Formats: sequence, C-alpha cells, structure tokens
Amino acid sequence: MNVREIAIECRKAAVAVAELDTRAKNTLLNAMADELEAQADKVLAANAEDMQAAREAGTDEAFLDRLALDEKRLQGVADALRYVASLPDPVGQVTHSETSDKGFTIERVRIPLGVISMIYEARPNVTADAAALCLKAGNGVILRGGSKAIRSNKAIAACLRKALVDAGLSEYAVVLMEDLSREAMLELMQLTDIVDLIIPRGGEGLIRFVTENARVPVIKHYKGVCHLYVDKAADLDKAVDLAIDGKCTRPAACNSIENLLVHADVAGTFLPRVTRALRERGVELRGDERSRTIVPDMKPATDEDYATEFLALELAVRVVDDVDDAIAHIRQYGSDHTEVIATEDAATANQFVHALRSAVVMVNTSSRFSDGGELGLGAEIGISTTRLHAYGPMGADALTIERFVLRGHGEVRHPESRAAAG
Amino acid sequence: MNVREIAIECRKAAVAVAELDTRAKNTLLNAMADELEAQADKVLAANAEDMQAAREAGTDEAFLDRLALDEKRLQGVADALRYVASLPDPVGQVTHSETSDKGFTIERVRIPLGVISMIYEARPNVTADAAALCLKAGNGVILRGGSKAIRSNKAIAACLRKALVDAGLSEYAVVLMEDLSREAMLELMQLTDIVDLIIPRGGEGLIRFVTENARVPVIKHYKGVCHLYVDKAADLDKAVDLAIDGKCTRPAACNSIENLLVHADVAGTFLPRVTRALRERGVELRGDERSRTIVPDMKPATDEDYATEFLALELAVRVVDDVDDAIAHIRQYGSDHTEVIATEDAATANQFVHALRSAVVMVNTSSRFSDGGELGLGAEIGISTTRLHAYGPMGADALTIERFVLRGHGEVRHPESRAAAG
Repeated sequence: MNVREIAIECRKAAVAVAELDTRAKNTLLNAMADELEAQADKVLAANAEDMQAAREAGTDEAFLDRLALDEKRLQGVADALRYVASLPDPVGQVTHSETSDKGFTIERVRIPLGVISMIYEARPNVTADAAALCLKAGNGVILRGGSKAIRSNKAIAACLRKALVDAGLSEYAVVLMEDLSREAMLELMQLTDIVDLIIPRGGEGLIRFVTENARVPVIKHYKGVCHLYVDKAADLDKAVDLAIDGKCTRPAACNSIENLLVHADVAGTFLPRVTRALRERGVELRGDERSRTIVPDMKPATDEDYATEFLALELAVRVVDDVDDAIAHIRQYGSDHTEVIATEDAATANQFVHALRSAVVMVNTSSRFSDGGELGLGAEIGISTTRLHAYGPMGADALTIERFVLRGHGEVRHPESRAAAG
Repeated sequence: MNVREIAIECRKAAVAVAELDTRAKNTLLNAMADELEAQADKVLAANAEDMQAAREAGTDEAFLDRLALDEKRLQGVADALRYVASLPDPVGQVTHSETSDKGFTIERVRIPLGVISMIYEARPNVTADAAALCLKAGNGVILRGGSKAIRSNKAIAACLRKALVDAGLSEYAVVLMEDLSREAMLELMQLTDIVDLIIPRGGEGLIRFVTENARVPVIKHYKGVCHLYVDKAADLDKAVDLAIDGKCTRPAACNSIENLLVHADVAGTFLPRVTRALRERGVELRGDERSRTIVPDMKPATDEDYATEFLALELAVRVVDDVDDAIAHIRQYGSDHTEVIATEDAATANQFVHALRSAVVMVNTSSRFSDGGELGLGAEIGISTTRLHAYGPMGADALTIERFVLRGHGEVRHPESRAAAG
C-alpha cells in the first residue's frame, strides 16, 4: 500500500477507536503493556541491532543514549502505557453545559481529533507513548520515527498491533511508517483530507522541514530557550536555587534555562554568588559586557548565544536595566516556551506575566516544572510552542476538540413559520 | 510598504493591543461605532460606487445583496461594534486553577493569539465585525476583503483607524489590504513568523485556494451540508417543524439543512406531509428512488446533490433503512457542520450523537440554532469546520489561547540540589 492508502486505513480504524468506551481503551492499553513485556527479548534484540548500526555509523553518544533500550527502560515504556490507561478519558467530557432560554440544552463535549501523525527522531519509547496518548483520546495514529531506530520501532509497533488485533480492532489504528523516504514523509504531510494534525518532535531541522512542507496543520514542539529573570526585588537565595534547578538538574531538557537576566541593581551582589554556585556544578558561562565587569572570567556572549538552546551545562548571562529591559530581551530572543521571574514584588511579577505571551510563565518557580506531569496533565505528548489549539504541555485533552451537542424538544428559531401556525 | 512590512507593523501594534485592559478595548470599540455613524455619508457613498461598478460588471443579485449597505445596515454594523464592546473580555480569563502538591499555584489563563488574518468576499460588514472580535480578544487583524467591496471596505477601515489613532494606538492594529493581487494574498499566507491564524470566509473556491496555499494555520469555515434525520421514533409534528425551520427561514445561511433523511418505517406517513409543507413554502425537492415511490413528482437526486450546499430553497431527500444508514450517509456526504436527529428514542439519539463527529449535533432542535449568538458565544467570527483549535461557532474566546501561569515561593524540582543543601 502507498502512503495515502495506509492513511485511509488508519482513518477507517480511527472511526472504530473513537467509538470505544473508556474500559475498552484502557484494556487495550494494558494489553499493549503486557505484550511489550512478553516480547521484551525481541524488542531488546532489535534495539541492539539498531545500536550496533548506529555505532558503526559513528553516531554521537547523546543520540546513542536516546536510542538505547534496556530491560529497565523497556519496563518504563510498559509502565507508561499502564499509566496512560489509568488517566481520565478526555472523550465525552462535558466542558460546559447550559440551558438556552429557548428550552434546549447546550453542552460542549470533547471528541477525538481523528488521525494524528507523530514525526520524531531517535527515542523508540515515543512509539509507544505517542500511540498510547492518541488512542486514549480516541484517535488513530501514524508514527514516523527516525531511520536509526527503525528496528526498535518495528518491534514495539508489532506488540501494539498484536494487542489491537487481539481486541478485534484494525491493526491500522496504529501505523508505523516503514517507508522512511523523504518522499513518503512529504506525501504524508499533504494528506489534508485524511490526517488532522501533525506533531513533530525533534531537532530544529526536523521541525523546520515539517512546518515548511506540511499542508496538514502542525503543532510545533520547538526549542525551549527559557529565561530566568532575577529582579531587583528578588529573594536572592531563592533566585540562586531557581538558577541551579533550572540549569543543572537536567540540562538536556527543553524546560531548562538557557538565559539568565539580572537586574542591574542586584547584579553586583547576585552574579558572584550565582556564578560560583553554577560553576561548582560544571556550568560554562557567557556574559555581556556589564556582567563581565562583575564576573570578568566569563566568555563574551554573542547575539546567537542568547537565541541558542544549549541543552548542556552552558548559560548565557546578561545584566538588564529593569523588568522592561528583561521583557524586551525575552521577546527578542525567546522561543515562547517557559519564562521565570524571581521577585517578591507583586506588581513587577504581574507586569512580567502580562507582557509575555510564552506558553508557561512562572513567578518564583523553577522552569523545570514546565512539564505535563508536573502541571496536572498526567502525561504529555510534548510541549507546544504553537499558539493555536494547545500551547505549552499537551496531555490527552489536547488530542481532542470540543464540539456542541444540543438536546431539545422540537425548538425552532422561527416559531411563526411552524406548520401548525400555517 | 510591502505585505511583509505591513504585517510586521500589525504584529507590533498587536503587542500593544494585547496589553490593553478591558475598559480601554471597549472604549475603542465604542469610538469605532461613533466614527462609523459620523462618517455614514462617506461610507454609503463609497458603497454606492462599489454597487454601481458591480452592477456594470454584471454581478448577480445575491452578490449585490451581500454587498449593499444602506442607513439601516450601516447602523447595524455600528450596533454590532457596541455589542462586541458589551461582551465579556476573554483575555485574562482563568479557565482552570489548582495548587500543586509542590506548593505553587497553576492557572490556565487566556491570552491573545497575536495577529489574525481574515480573508473574505462580498460583505463589507465583515470588515468591522471581524476587526471588533479580533481586537476584543487582544489581537491585531489583517483584513483582505473582496475586490468588489474595496471602496466600502476602505471607507469602513478609515473609521476604525481614526478611532485607533485617537486612542493613541497604531493604525496598523487593523490593516485593510489594499493590494488585492493574488501575489499579495499568497505572500500574506506564507508569513508563518508573523501571522498566527488565517480565517477564510466565503465560497468553496476561496476556501480551497487558501487551504491549498497557506503555510500559516487556517481554520476553515467551509460549507454547511447540514442534515435532518427523521427517525422511526420521531414525533412527526416536531419533525415537520424542524424541516420547515431548517430549510425555509433563511436558506442562504450555512446552518440551513440541505439533506432530509427519513427512516423507511415512517417515510410513507411523513414524506407526503413534509413535502407538501415544504412545497407550500417554495422548496424544490429532489429524491432517491425509494422516496420517489412515495412522492413521485420529485426530481431524481444525484450523488452530487447530496454533497451540495444549495443555499437556496432546494432540498435533497433520501429514505434510509435505519439510524446506521443515516449515519453512514452523513459520514459520506456531510461537511462536519451541523446534523439533527428527530427522535423520541433516547438510545437512538445517543447513538446518532456519538457516531457523528460534526461540529454541532442536535436532538430535536432546529439546525438554525447553530450560530454563535444562539449558542451563548455573544457574537461569532464564523463557524469552524476544522477539527483543531475551535470547532463550530467561534466567538471571541476562540481568538485566544490558554497558557499556563505558575506562582510559587521558590519551589524547585530537585530540592536536594539547592545551594543551601550543598
């Protein structure tokens, strides 16, 4: 089958998935977890082949780490499936309810989006995670993973399909694209009549390729150039903690901070403290001229540094005149992901919150909480930086749409035109 | 200025609009209404020129009717601006609030989308209506109306701009594109870094052109091929009223019904009654073979008829075996807009509601209530048939996006890494 034919099969399967009740969906997800455990040896063997091929191709260590599965990680994948099964079902949720003065009731009710395509890179766990969230929200899913993970992805997808077929469903409810050519991906991204949404997750190059070539709507999960602004009214002890937690606890995460902005009035006190604490934890610092007069042994920061998602123990520092200056900096260099202000002044905090339109804005809270699990969504399919449909961490809810359901007793808009009136 | 430069000015202006408080926005909208009233003569004179040019070009009567303004219609436009001013402000609305077990509060708060482009055809009132809703939701707006309404649109936009400038705002918060070339529209639709959303409103040709060429996300307001299904358990008196109200009270509206599906068990009783009532009101009927054995003097209905939005006193009729058959028909021919079932059987009603994923699904209620005003949204910018971001009637809320705001006391994700812990 070609890409279009596969997608049509997925759409048909999605109609059946949309009608499954909560119990049936949860049973399915648990069966998928069981199947992954039962076929663990096969999955790990496939992953070992992927790893060997990737090593032979000279792939870097960070990539190999994302690609690698072991018994513990695979157990984590199965556990994640069971966890998604345990979450509330968004489908059928009534988000608003009222009675019209005309007599009928109006409800807003969540329904599935339809068919979602996930385009991603190294991590094989995304194959199961994304499938689980899409199915939980009643959707069909077309997965297009990276070529270096293809054997692992195939082995995982085989487990998912086995559970689908055992449940009497079409195996096409979860499609893993095996044709990884550029042409096939381009074709997939043009199927506006079949695919409802594309979610790309990966590096800047992948995101750009998808947004520049897709006709199907795309929700970008773009880079996180996150900021911590330390205001003159900050509690500096808290601010040091926010900097350490934000930069050092998982530098490869998109919710780690990349830029530290410090109010000029406290820079003389704060910068020596925070830079010492960060350096003790291995962070390499770059600074603007003003910050380098206070901490002279930082490298100079370039404009490009301020726009960079380091994903590593690196941090760009800048001294700013005030909160307006910090806001202007974030508007210029930020990626609309997550911004933090450290201040004890409520008015300044409110100004920061209102002026910025990033997906997540925080007062005196670590950027590392910008995560679906931490924000009460249960699990997340990613963090949207597209200001449409969903913005910030996206859970199963965000894979549905609210529509209107009216229930009446024969109400009409123009009663004077009724047959009985004629 | 070229299209990109104009759009950049609009984005800058939108930053200021986003920060306006409710009172300032409402004052602005009321001032726009005042200005439209003060310059009524100019607007009507410009419209008269548009009308004359359109008549000379041989434009059809339906188009001329949509284009025409008179004192009463213009007053309606001004009143609509004041009405939008009176609606609740979606910006800053807290849609969800909780306290994390970590101590910080989590709120979901509505913020503006940014810059919205509206692409439309004849009706000059859309110039003011769309601008009002976009501004109320804190957005900048780029309007691209049809060439035949350009003089009217310019005169209306001049009033809106005057009010913006009088309020100390950039006139670029509301841009009316004056370059109506295809190239300029194509350029506008590629500005993914500036424009956040495109809403096309108009005929199928326009919608298709926009969706096939835009890189900016599009929310389609596509045709309304709406269905009334009369079940065997229907109250036939109500069903006749629903058919009359749905078809005859405003046939040119997208929420009018185009297809009438009737359960075979009641077709013998119902079809003679309903077709008589509809014909008395001037409706031309087309039917399938089974319905024509009951009402022989209907024209035969083609497959194409069932997929057509007549926007006129025409109706396609079909006899179906049961609710499953009705659902299958709607899935095949519908446009995801609005579907109605007439039935007194709750289980059948639920089956119909759950199986269909149209934007608005109704039980025993006229399709003509599928309208933002009737559904409690105040006003609507249109009815989305795109199952992403907003689905069904879109009010000011749908021109915003929810984001996360966290307020804490220095909470960090890994307390063990705090400076004081070291």
